[in-house]
Amino acid sequence: MIVIGERINGMFKKVREAIQKKDAAYIQDLAARQVKAGATILDINVGTASTDLVTDMVWLVNSVQETVSVPLSIDCARHEPLEAGLAAVRGKKVLNSTTGKADDLAKLLPLARKHRAAVIGLTIDEDGVPATTDKRVEIAAKIMAAAMENEIPADDLYIDPITLPVNCAQDQPTRVFSAISQFRMLSDPSPHVCIGLSNISQRLKEHQLLNRTFLIMCMAHGLDSAILDPLDEELMKAMITAELVMNKFIYADSYLEAAQKAAQR
Amino acid sequence: MIVIGERINGMFKKVREAIQKKDAAYIQDLAARQVKAGATILDINVGTASTDLVTDMVWLVNSVQETVSVPLSIDCARHEPLEAGLAAVRGKKVLNSTTGKADDLAKLLPLARKHRAAVIGLTIDEDGVPATTDKRVEIAAKIMAAAMENEIPADDLYIDPITLPVNCAQDQPTRVFSAISQFRMLSDPSPHVCIGLSNISQRLKEHQLLNRTFLIMCMAHGLDSAILDPLDEELMKAMITAELVMNKFIYADSYLEAAQKAAQR
Repeated sequence: MIVIGERINGMFKKVREAIQKKDAAYIQDLAARQVKAGATILDINVGTASTDLVTDMVWLVNSVQETVSVPLSIDCARHEPLEAGLAAVRGKKVLNSTTGKADDLAKLLPLARKHRAAVIGLTIDEDGVPATTDKRVEIAAKIMAAAMENEIPADDLYIDPITLPVNCAQDQPTRVFSAISQFRMLSDPSPHVCIGLSNISQRLKEHQLLNRTFLIMCMAHGLDSAILDPLDEELMKAMITAELVMNKFIYADSYLEAAQKAAQR
Repeated sequence: MIVIGERINGMFKKVREAIQKKDAAYIQDLAARQVKAGATILDINVGTASTDLVTDMVWLVNSVQETVSVPLSIDCARHEPLEAGLAAVRGKKVLNSTTGKADDLAKLLPLARKHRAAVIGLTIDEDGVPATTDKRVEIAAKIMAAAMENEIPADDLYIDPITLPVNCAQDQPTRVFSAISQFRMLSDPSPHVCIGLSNISQRLKEHQLLNRTFLIMCMAHGLDSAILDPLDEELMKAMITAELVMNKFIYADSYLEAAQKAAQR
């Protein structure tokens, strides 16, 4: 699994405060702990409270880069801070995110190409979030075609079928499962398939149990990436066990410890 | 989910001792606790240490029936105790199990018909346990055709794709997933699909984590029944959460407690 650590996000109160106070040590500790826990990529999101998104994004990227060397995912809905963040990343980078809207594809994929960034593509279009599997696949195909035109290889493309909170749209998870299976068959090599995990359980009582259950059900259908909290230990154990079941690494009695160590390399 | 409680099985030391001492109170407590924890059906297996399988099976069935009124699954590889057990069950019963071998189908399905028993059909044939999805589906279709000839309705048929320990056959779980999906499409209404859950983790260190992970990955593909330990609380929570994700009941903040109460009715 490609684990995109979600914790450096200004929507969390302590992160917001650290950004406001320019407390690099707090951010760097959060970065290091996520990588130690198994994050392959770190998501960087300033949040909405910032009064200077560009400055704050570049500060966040630079603070994190001083501590860890994993790829960074620049997560911003506005163009300027998104571009500034991508430009600031020294190593591998991810543009988080484009939708399948014609305008977004026309603006954001050339940006990804310019910065040699991987791209997360959400299956949303001018009509909003799709209610069906077929519509998700249709938008995914549109994003993939646009990526190809922009010379973004399949291995740099992460298609997100869009997860909604289970209490709002309880008929959607099974459609997400079938969309994941179908995305994996859209091309060879296939794009990665990624979800924003916490969406399934937003503000719900059993959010951790819901997160790990939904994650491994998605993995059973071919999900190979997720934006999630790598500091949730039970979640990471469930994820590693699902990878074992999917035959992604060889069984050993100490497979949990072995996988955790391998992720830290 | 149709939960078949696995605990009344002579392979467990304390159950074996209770059978030998005819300690009905121990068995009845185990029966009551499994039903309270959410078992829909109780599996009854004398085990191999018995010197009088028929007497012990009938004693087990009668002991359990004095306490609980759920259907009983008579689990025995030998014909006489299997028939004696089925005859002793007053309510709904399950024959556990037939394979897809011609001999078994010819002997066991008429027995199920005679006793109006549901049947668990393992996708094993004269060549042993299949290594592929297609072979599993082929055997399942053979079992279903034989069940139809014996007037056993789809709702009384449980097809088991056969789970092997993950450390011995790590390429098999993904084939089990696709077999489950395909079994569900073999007829309308479809047969139930059932697994013997503990097989995935036999004698392995992380057996409980493996069990609950594998269970909900199977559920994501349409599994609707399993022989498992309902006294494993984390397993039952994961199972109920997977049912929620599969839209089997409506979300409520207290969905865990609500599902547990509903199961006890």
